[in-house]
Amino acid sequence: MDIRLFRRREVHGSALCELAPFRSKGRTVYGVDGMTMERTLALQLPRKLVFGANSLAACAEWIGAQNPAAVLIVTSPQIRSLCDPLVAALQSQGRTAQVWDGVSAEPHVDDLAAAIAAARDCRAELVVGLGGGSAMDVAKLVAALLDGRQQIGEVFGIGKLAGRSTPLACVPTTSGTGSEVSPIAIVQDSADGLKKGVISPYLVPDAAFVDPLLTLGMPPAVTASTGIDALTHCIEAYANRQAHPLVDTWALEGIRRIARSLPAAYADGRNVAARTDVALGSMYGGMCLGPVNTAAVHALAYPLGSDFGVAHGTSNAVLLEHVLEFNLPAATGRYADIARAFGVEEGGAASDVAQRGLEFLRDLNHRVGIPAHIAELGVPESAIDRMADSALTVQRLLQQNPRVVTLQDARDIYRRAF
Amino acid sequence: MDIRLFRRREVHGSALCELAPFRSKGRTVYGVDGMTMERTLALQLPRKLVFGANSLAACAEWIGAQNPAAVLIVTSPQIRSLCDPLVAALQSQGRTAQVWDGVSAEPHVDDLAAAIAAARDCRAELVVGLGGGSAMDVAKLVAALLDGRQQIGEVFGIGKLAGRSTPLACVPTTSGTGSEVSPIAIVQDSADGLKKGVISPYLVPDAAFVDPLLTLGMPPAVTASTGIDALTHCIEAYANRQAHPLVDTWALEGIRRIARSLPAAYADGRNVAARTDVALGSMYGGMCLGPVNTAAVHALAYPLGSDFGVAHGTSNAVLLEHVLEFNLPAATGRYADIARAFGVEEGGAASDVAQRGLEFLRDLNHRVGIPAHIAELGVPESAIDRMADSALTVQRLLQQNPRVVTLQDARDIYRRAF
Repeated sequence: MDIRLFRRREVHGSALCELAPFRSKGRTVYGVDGMTMERTLALQLPRKLVFGANSLAACAEWIGAQNPAAVLIVTSPQIRSLCDPLVAALQSQGRTAQVWDGVSAEPHVDDLAAAIAAARDCRAELVVGLGGGSAMDVAKLVAALLDGRQQIGEVFGIGKLAGRSTPLACVPTTSGTGSEVSPIAIVQDSADGLKKGVISPYLVPDAAFVDPLLTLGMPPAVTASTGIDALTHCIEAYANRQAHPLVDTWALEGIRRIARSLPAAYADGRNVAARTDVALGSMYGGMCLGPVNTAAVHALAYPLGSDFGVAHGTSNAVLLEHVLEFNLPAATGRYADIARAFGVEEGGAASDVAQRGLEFLRDLNHRVGIPAHIAELGVPESAIDRMADSALTVQRLLQQNPRVVTLQDARDIYRRAF
Repeated sequence: MDIRLFRRREVHGSALCELAPFRSKGRTVYGVDGMTMERTLALQLPRKLVFGANSLAACAEWIGAQNPAAVLIVTSPQIRSLCDPLVAALQSQGRTAQVWDGVSAEPHVDDLAAAIAAARDCRAELVVGLGGGSAMDVAKLVAALLDGRQQIGEVFGIGKLAGRSTPLACVPTTSGTGSEVSPIAIVQDSADGLKKGVISPYLVPDAAFVDPLLTLGMPPAVTASTGIDALTHCIEAYANRQAHPLVDTWALEGIRRIARSLPAAYADGRNVAARTDVALGSMYGGMCLGPVNTAAVHALAYPLGSDFGVAHGTSNAVLLEHVLEFNLPAATGRYADIARAFGVEEGGAASDVAQRGLEFLRDLNHRVGIPAHIAELGVPESAIDRMADSALTVQRLLQQNPRVVTLQDARDIYRRAF
């Protein structure tokens, strides 16, 4: 395949091409600013994907078609009432519908064990995750581990899950995680206190129902942090060494929608149009997670969460601008595209446009009440070296970053964010 | 939901809004030029979707994971050799791999019956459609009807299929139909000679493998007609009363890719980059077919195919420009967006931009050798009235057209195309 030819085509209509070719797996490929289509992309998708107001009703209908005798709905205590219409619909179909609302903000493997026990108690033949990322992640793991063939300790990492025999649907009530369409679930291991991921195509739900009306009650702070998390998924998938034209489209569309509507959703949680826009952007972000995944922002955000309990979205939000500033010279054209998707003014070199994108992000964070500095999150500056060490272990994501991140780079980025 | 608010959002960055609100199902909605997100969109997707060079290898791997004892590969005689690597891979897995190459350009229900008999003969537990739209459509119906619960005569129409018990994968060798991701299969009924569609979520394959390398051998004329067919899917999904923001993104991306790369794929069939671009555009077109589907171009094209045997893509191609010219005043903003996706020059009113889009289409047809007039296809002008009568029966698609098409309108459009 003539990469050069393709390279020219892919940059059509944008101002890419600053980067020199780089070596990958022993050969020269064009990265980040000169995407190729060489890589064959395998997507695992929900077989059924429903988007829009009242799609919760479609969820009940889909479950009816699967005909399970009993259903376990995994959720969090504060949103339990959102399950009521689904429970009523399932009961009217003559099914057992058990709600397990033990999901906490940062779920443990112990919580997972309790959820699996609840599923066994009610003889669940189908599992629904209804809630934010935590509830959906626990539900995904319950469905995967319910048959008892594997234990959670055996499946941490990529591709360790042997299968999933229990049908699974996810219904998000936040717009951030994209877990409803992603192959990822994260729980905290009680053994060592670390947050660990299970990544497997079997974790992509069979069906996802994205109902923006379920997000209307989200408090502003949650709207902000989850929304910026979703935005980060899209940004990091677009400016990524593994970026792919198929996913680029979704990433840019997600960026456009979240950037233009998150402030309105934050200012007025009942604004259905804004909620709908952000929900769609978040779903696109989730669709990027499987085939491309994230990069340095997520890698550097993890220690803030695991060591200091900062919410995942907030951790990403405070680091986003600083990581992007660091990355910018390595993928200027890509960041200029992102800035255009934000809607910034055109004009000047690509680096000027990209810079205006950084300003837009700073302003966006401010408008949705995200703290400007890590210091405001109760993290001491003395933790920088330890956090940098920890972040550098997340090579799975760092390898995808458009610019190599050394230990010193990580420290510098944290320092700037303080 | 405040439609007006949403309407404003949706037109962000484009020049829509010419159309007055219209009534639908007893209430006022904004159509075509003032998209809303009110409609809840249900997508049925392949669980596995692989795109890129050599994804045929991923197909063998996927089949291995399903573990069928025997596989029937449905294909057409002229591309039978493309099945060889898949057959070899399946045999090396210890499976029976039977190729049935009886698919003709316009498959009949009799062909379908023969294919089902072949599947029973080899006790196929999984069906693969490898080829153009005809081969994939027959394979989809074989998988759906193999268990003998229903006959083809019972399932014509929308939603008549009760289920599908046989796993199904599709591998396109043309870039046009999008059948690998769509819920549609079309065969000719021997009883009355009409082409009839089966539309059902069960017809969406479990897995689709889109390998642009398989399209390299497509003759230029087939490249042209199938490519314009795919382009038409995208255009008619975008300028459509049922248009939806989720699908709009795919439609515009498909338009962009096909418009910019079809001439290169036509001029040099070995141009992998151009082939890849068109294959991706075609896949996006197929993804639009389920949730939105097409409109008047397809409705008016059907009689050319069923009465005069004109290839489906060519029928669409000769009518496309004329139907669009007719539709333009009813959805100027949408057609201007489409023209921008073609890459035409900006400037002037939306109607000017949209007009430049029509010129682009005329030129595109010319560059890929599509006849400029129906008369060149061996269709007599005396057939116009009969074709118009026949096209008007396809209300399923005409209802979605941005502008109402009367019998006289249909006659006028045909006349202009002659």
